[in-house]
Amino acid sequence: MQGKIALEEHFAIEETVGDSAGFSPADDWVELKARLLDIQDRRLAEMDAHGIELMLLSLNAPAIQAIPDRAHALELSRRANDFLAEQVARRPERFQGLAALPMQDPEAAARELDRCVSALKFRGALVNGFSEVEGHDGAVYYDRKEFWPFWSEVERLDVPFYLHPRNPLAKDAAIYEGHRWLMGPTWAFGQETAVHALRLMGSGLFDAYPRLQIILGHMGEGLPYSMWRVDNHNKWMRAQNVYPAKRKIADYFRENFYITTSGNFRTQALIDAMLEIGADRILFSADWPFENIDHAAEWFDSATIAEGDRIKIGRDNARSLFRL
Amino acid sequence: MQGKIALEEHFAIEETVGDSAGFSPADDWVELKARLLDIQDRRLAEMDAHGIELMLLSLNAPAIQAIPDRAHALELSRRANDFLAEQVARRPERFQGLAALPMQDPEAAARELDRCVSALKFRGALVNGFSEVEGHDGAVYYDRKEFWPFWSEVERLDVPFYLHPRNPLAKDAAIYEGHRWLMGPTWAFGQETAVHALRLMGSGLFDAYPRLQIILGHMGEGLPYSMWRVDNHNKWMRAQNVYPAKRKIADYFRENFYITTSGNFRTQALIDAMLEIGADRILFSADWPFENIDHAAEWFDSATIAEGDRIKIGRDNARSLFRL
Amino acid sequence: MQGKIALEEHFAIEETVGDSAGFSPADDWVELKARLLDIQDRRLAEMDAHGIELMLLSLNAPAIQAIPDRAHALELSRRANDFLAEQVARRPERFQGLAALPMQDPEAAARELDRCVSALKFRGALVNGFSEVEGHDGAVYYDRKEFWPFWSEVERLDVPFYLHPRNPLAKDAAIYEGHRWLMGPTWAFGQETAVHALRLMGSGLFDAYPRLQIILGHMGEGLPYSMWRVDNHNKWMRAQNVYPAKRKIADYFRENFYITTSGNFRTQALIDAMLEIGADRILFSADWPFENIDHAAEWFDSATIAEGDRIKIGRDNARSLFRL
Amino acid sequence: MQGKIALEEHFAIEETVGDSAGFSPADDWVELKARLLDIQDRRLAEMDAHGIELMLLSLNAPAIQAIPDRAHALELSRRANDFLAEQVARRPERFQGLAALPMQDPEAAARELDRCVSALKFRGALVNGFSEVEGHDGAVYYDRKEFWPFWSEVERLDVPFYLHPRNPLAKDAAIYEGHRWLMGPTWAFGQETAVHALRLMGSGLFDAYPRLQIILGHMGEGLPYSMWRVDNHNKWMRAQNVYPAKRKIADYFRENFYITTSGNFRTQALIDAMLEIGADRILFSADWPFENIDHAAEWFDSATIAEGDRIKIGRDNARSLFRL
Ligand SMILES: [Zn+2]
Ligand SMILES: [Zn+2]
Ligand SMILES: [Zn+2]
Ligand SMILES: [Zn+2]
Repeated sequence: MQGKIALEEHFAIEETVGDSAGFSPADDWVELKARLLDIQDRRLAEMDAHGIELMLLSLNAPAIQAIPDRAHALELSRRANDFLAEQVARRPERFQGLAALPMQDPEAAARELDRCVSALKFRGALVNGFSEVEGHDGAVYYDRKEFWPFWSEVERLDVPFYLHPRNPLAKDAAIYEGHRWLMGPTWAFGQETAVHALRLMGSGLFDAYPRLQIILGHMGEGLPYSMWRVDNHNKWMRAQNVYPAKRKIADYFRENFYITTSGNFRTQALIDAMLEIGADRILFSADWPFENIDHAAEWFDSATIAEGDRIKIGRDNARSLFRL
Repeated sequence: MQGKIALEEHFAIEETVGDSAGFSPADDWVELKARLLDIQDRRLAEMDAHGIELMLLSLNAPAIQAIPDRAHALELSRRANDFLAEQVARRPERFQGLAALPMQDPEAAARELDRCVSALKFRGALVNGFSEVEGHDGAVYYDRKEFWPFWSEVERLDVPFYLHPRNPLAKDAAIYEGHRWLMGPTWAFGQETAVHALRLMGSGLFDAYPRLQIILGHMGEGLPYSMWRVDNHNKWMRAQNVYPAKRKIADYFRENFYITTSGNFRTQALIDAMLEIGADRILFSADWPFENIDHAAEWFDSATIAEGDRIKIGRDNARSLFRL
Repeated sequence: MQGKIALEEHFAIEETVGDSAGFSPADDWVELKARLLDIQDRRLAEMDAHGIELMLLSLNAPAIQAIPDRAHALELSRRANDFLAEQVARRPERFQGLAALPMQDPEAAARELDRCVSALKFRGALVNGFSEVEGHDGAVYYDRKEFWPFWSEVERLDVPFYLHPRNPLAKDAAIYEGHRWLMGPTWAFGQETAVHALRLMGSGLFDAYPRLQIILGHMGEGLPYSMWRVDNHNKWMRAQNVYPAKRKIADYFRENFYITTSGNFRTQALIDAMLEIGADRILFSADWPFENIDHAAEWFDSATIAEGDRIKIGRDNARSLFRL
Repeated sequence: MQGKIALEEHFAIEETVGDSAGFSPADDWVELKARLLDIQDRRLAEMDAHGIELMLLSLNAPAIQAIPDRAHALELSRRANDFLAEQVARRPERFQGLAALPMQDPEAAARELDRCVSALKFRGALVNGFSEVEGHDGAVYYDRKEFWPFWSEVERLDVPFYLHPRNPLAKDAAIYEGHRWLMGPTWAFGQETAVHALRLMGSGLFDAYPRLQIILGHMGEGLPYSMWRVDNHNKWMRAQNVYPAKRKIADYFRENFYITTSGNFRTQALIDAMLEIGADRILFSADWPFENIDHAAEWFDSATIAEGDRIKIGRDNARSLFRL
């Protein structure tokens, strides 16, 4: 398929590129680093070769989210966003931007998002999971009340928010002890992000800001397969799942969430997702440079779905969600 | 469908019944407790009413696994197993037993399994996730080397081992803080059990004991949807997923695992599982008394799958796996 | 689901009701006849009871199409359409009309369609397969050139055309000899209508009138399952499928056709159709009074598809296709 | 996948090769003819290149079935079968035989099948649809009572019977008039063979000979998608589908039929078939030389189904059905 749009596609700047080193074997780091620092060259050639017209770019992970110092997190966000804006300006028909945000300081994050959308013409934000924050000794998730004014601003700006994975803190990763291979995309990314998304849903956030649209990568981080059980386990009991939100979790999932195909090029999962959240809320993505563009595109272009759905997932859904 | 076999079906004895109190709202505890303590009465009526010919019974959770004292864990296992053997003896054509095991002491667990299989004619074991063990300050998972002699005995006895969920320890549950509703079957059960299963697969256990058969409930605890990504993420890198096992994780999943439908009565997930692990490795179960028999049976009897697969999943697979 | 729209729903007038007698056992004819002649009473109660807000009504089969005399066919079409318009006028929020057309005379059919759309405010047409025409000794299909001016008018009026089944002529039904049970909805309806649709696609009609929208009932009359083979059999040969049309048959199927669920309440087929033609081109329908409303609605309301797709298939697709 | 078995794979002898000329454009006839007349050379190379260990060979179509003269039909059957036996004898580990049968004379057909199975060690029969018979002016289908002694012999010999497509007689093909492209594999093959199979099911044949196993090619000739409607249309009426057989049609379909993937390399249809008839009754096949081995094998080897099902469909089901 020509004309695809991809939206979980990462770059790095010198200050953040090292954050990705842990996600590749040492032997592949030279290649990964080069891919991350490139925008206008190799990346563009890959896009041309595999029918990707447009990439929405975002900073690598965890980057900003792993900087406990609020001022530093803000300063680096601004620098990364400014850099991205320059890159986009060189080829706006091929690249668009998603903002990095210093969520450590919700008010600063809201201001930076406003700046990115209003001044830099970014299309939304991509945030790498929970934030580490000076003075907190654990992961800070965004269902907490101090983030609601931030979410209010996201709704007002009317742009999507991509909730991207990161690994749990070492203190919260006992379950993976002795099995480091389960960290990252193998497994831990999915658990982290799925639970963060469920926290948002259960918190009542979407009752307060019903127009918010959150994007999850990797075919929904496992949620489509397990969503029924979230709402329907122990059905005979009178009051399971006591949370502040007013509706069933699946209602929020299908009204406030989109999912992308990034890093999960499996047709069975795509079909399952289509039967849970529907083709209107699925978006093509690759997860470059961690995943190859050809792996993503060749799979997607021949996945056994309806052609009309391929066009929606490959391009049209992104167009209308991001107003491209 | 008549003649179904169900195999994640729990009972309690006085000493363990309280362990289940946390899994129901206070209002429903009277009912849940009565259901757990009953075997020959209400349970049988439910089975008759919904076409279940045989239940393989197992102790409630976490029970034995939450008793750090080795001697106590063994003593209570024996008491529960003896009680179950008596119950089975009253109606062996309707009930069969799965052993509770004091995994805190692998050697004792092996001996108790041998006793249950050889003397009590149990059909296998059901263990509630990791064990708490005196002297360890964390969860003990069964991929550790000290358990390999136990697994050798399981293979020798040639009986299946049901890896049942339990909740993470409080110290490992920071991600659910402020969202208690995500504990238990809503979400945490799946994460706990899926990772435990992945640890077994990655450890090389099934290279050493290739005939082992592990059963996972709840349509595979999320694994079928995410299995492709476990093995195939970051495919261009030369060495992802460095673990002791020799093969791809999915190879172990489809050769050493069975999954059941317990508590996950969703046709989309069943179809996805059929396209990942195949109908030959899926088994009907309800998860009584936490789930209702009618919910499980009415869903399963009309699920939109081939009739031949219904008969295999509903009965024949269990028959040949447990030699019934 | 409340608010459903159903569009293959039939009524009869005294002159045509007898045409349906052959489609029911003698014992059920009293009931079927009463159902066909009723509009404002029993039908409305069924709609209310099963969440159907609106029915698009059409004359029973084969009716007009089985009247070789052109003048008679026209006269009866007008009478049926006028009657329908009166019925719709009594409850326009619950009933809308699809025109019966005297296809024996393509020019008259075009004029009658114009009258129905312009004057009677009908939403489209429903035609019962091929026509018998005085002077022809066989079935007349609408890919023939003499119908192209008619199709031009359909495109100009911008309304959908429902191609409804009928049985083959006795002379063309040798394959069913001794097996009358295969006639009608059991099998022959599907073959007749699928081939008629394929003739339209292969004729080049949709190259000439690319905005035409044809509706097929019964989950696409078997076409979704077999469409790949139509285009892709004997792929190594240089020129299979030599027909006047310019594109692959599947291209027309997905751009010029919609299908409905009428009389085919099978989730497997619905999923297959969704993966071939996509949820945007599937429409709920029952086929009352031949099928029961409760059978159609109870199946559809609980079919294991995404809720967003249920709303599209159940209502929104029809709304936008018929501008309701 | 290595070790595949394929079973709708055709060859021709000089006397029958011309029958296939109509199924290829003139430009491709040289190639098709060469492919049909080859067994030990090009065919073997294709098998080696694409993981096919064994082919069950059968004569091209319609061949014997289009010879009204009974004696000639028998004589040519014997000649083709003897030729095939010689070819198989050269490489029995790579080729096995399916008998051509002179169905024009049911008693002779039974005797020839016995000879092929008992003396030539063939694994079953493949017959090209209805027979033309001297003295009959139409197609003769095998549900007729004069064939029941033949079927009794098939059951006694306990070998499968492959019901292969052929085109309708010219007199029965009015529906395709002006659309010759719909003849053959595009569409007419499916209709002919599906109805023939339905006639067998409705006739009561499988009540009389319940161990008969019939194989249909091309993913079941459309039957899986439409089977529900065959049994369940007009459900409220008291007696639809009045036929001599005792059970629902779907019951025979799933107990007396197998289907193959020949010429229908579409994953959506495969999944639908798996959800209707089950993976235990689906068999890999290509339909060489009309379809390419590489098209069949590359599709099948990467079709998005469980690996265990791939092995069953690709080999193990055929092994146990044909006792290979
Ligand atoms: Zn990413
Ligand atoms: Zn349980
Ligand atoms: Zn109808
Ligand atoms: Zn063939």
